[in-house]
Amino acid sequence: MESAQMLDILGNENRRKILQLLSDRPCYVSEISGRLGVGPKAIINHLGLLEDTGLIECRVDDQRRKYFNIADNMRIEVAVSPHSYAVSVHTAPINTRYHLKHDDDETSEVQKAYATSALTELNREIRNTKSKQDELARKQQGLQVEFSELMDVCMDAIDKVADNPLQAEILYALLKNEHSIASLSYNFTIHPSHISAQVLTMAKRGLIEYTIKDKQQYWKILESENETGDEQ
Amino acid sequence: MESAQMLDILGNENRRKILQLLSDRPCYVSEISGRLGVGPKAIINHLGLLEDTGLIECRVDDQRRKYFNIADNMRIEVAVSPHSYAVSVHTAPINTRYHLKHDDDETSEVQKAYATSALTELNREIRNTKSKQDELARKQQGLQVEFSELMDVCMDAIDKVADNPLQAEILYALLKNEHSIASLSYNFTIHPSHISAQVLTMAKRGLIEYTIKDKQQYWKILESENETGDEQ
Repeated sequence: MESAQMLDILGNENRRKILQLLSDRPCYVSEISGRLGVGPKAIINHLGLLEDTGLIECRVDDQRRKYFNIADNMRIEVAVSPHSYAVSVHTAPINTRYHLKHDDDETSEVQKAYATSALTELNREIRNTKSKQDELARKQQGLQVEFSELMDVCMDAIDKVADNPLQAEILYALLKNEHSIASLSYNFTIHPSHISAQVLTMAKRGLIEYTIKDKQQYWKILESENETGDEQ
Repeated sequence: MESAQMLDILGNENRRKILQLLSDRPCYVSEISGRLGVGPKAIINHLGLLEDTGLIECRVDDQRRKYFNIADNMRIEVAVSPHSYAVSVHTAPINTRYHLKHDDDETSEVQKAYATSALTELNREIRNTKSKQDELARKQQGLQVEFSELMDVCMDAIDKVADNPLQAEILYALLKNEHSIASLSYNFTIHPSHISAQVLTMAKRGLIEYTIKDKQQYWKILESENETGDEQ
């Protein structure tokens, strides 16, 4: 699933409401239409878009009536800061190997007692999982702030290190990502020969280095290993 | 910032492109308009919506020209699975205490050498932070799958434990969240007296319990502590 497609999907309130309903249980079109107070034609249209992403699927029940359910575990993260814009989508197929078929026989009292104790145990595990999720979310946010602050300190260092504004632009771009001369040239709309001259100057000064991928040079900031001790 | 407002903002391709541009550096309206190939009127409209969320802000440069920059660290996560729909938005104000003002004096060679070594060190820290972020994202996704699988097992247990479909519905709702009788009644559009009768039956059987908040009873699945050993 493409992130842009998913953000377009989530940008509509009714589609968000449909996902919320389906995350509770599978639904017929008529149910969704009734709960949202929106005509079935519009609902079918939204469901079609959702189906295209693979996030929901359509099935047919015993009476041959169509219903919809969520078909995937999807997670999308958007992180925006003064130095970064990142969107990531993760999906994981639903794993139903644990889902045992329900017997039509009457459940015995012994089975009920067993299931009761299993349920309260499962409930505890669910609480645990949720609190772990909250903790990870807090950590993620902490890292994002850390990243943002690191970039701020870098801006100061770049100001001091660069001989001219173009060098500063190049260093800033390389801090975020590896780049070829061609992609730097394209991003800054500056002729490759100018980029190349600055890049070589900085390479000589031991500021940046390149790696070869697919026969192309990708430039990046030198990663510190050698402790330079020439601070007088 | 409300999550619905933020998802509406991100649901538009041009607004996403504007955020991406600003995450690189502050921009004038004319720059944004040029880069996106979209008229300035439409851009100003998008910028206004973005400004309303507090995510970007407008400033004035030395020549009294307006420019825009990102004003916040924002992180939004949407997780959808067959048993959950969760949207969370975290924001953290930009912390600029590390950002030292750049001296207008010429930087000395010694300062340059020092800044160079600082930059390569910072670069390493940035790579570390990024790989930690990737790791947390993987863990988050793992937990979401775990949660989804736990819910599947719970569905089986609920099928066995419940005396009737309404009890099953109530248990499923309580597994996700604590609820008052009133909110269960509202969600299922079933009269509170019917809900109440089922809830009391299940409480007697030691399946659920309540806590008091703001003088109201909130029901939840019993959390396992007492090992029930009556499995024959």
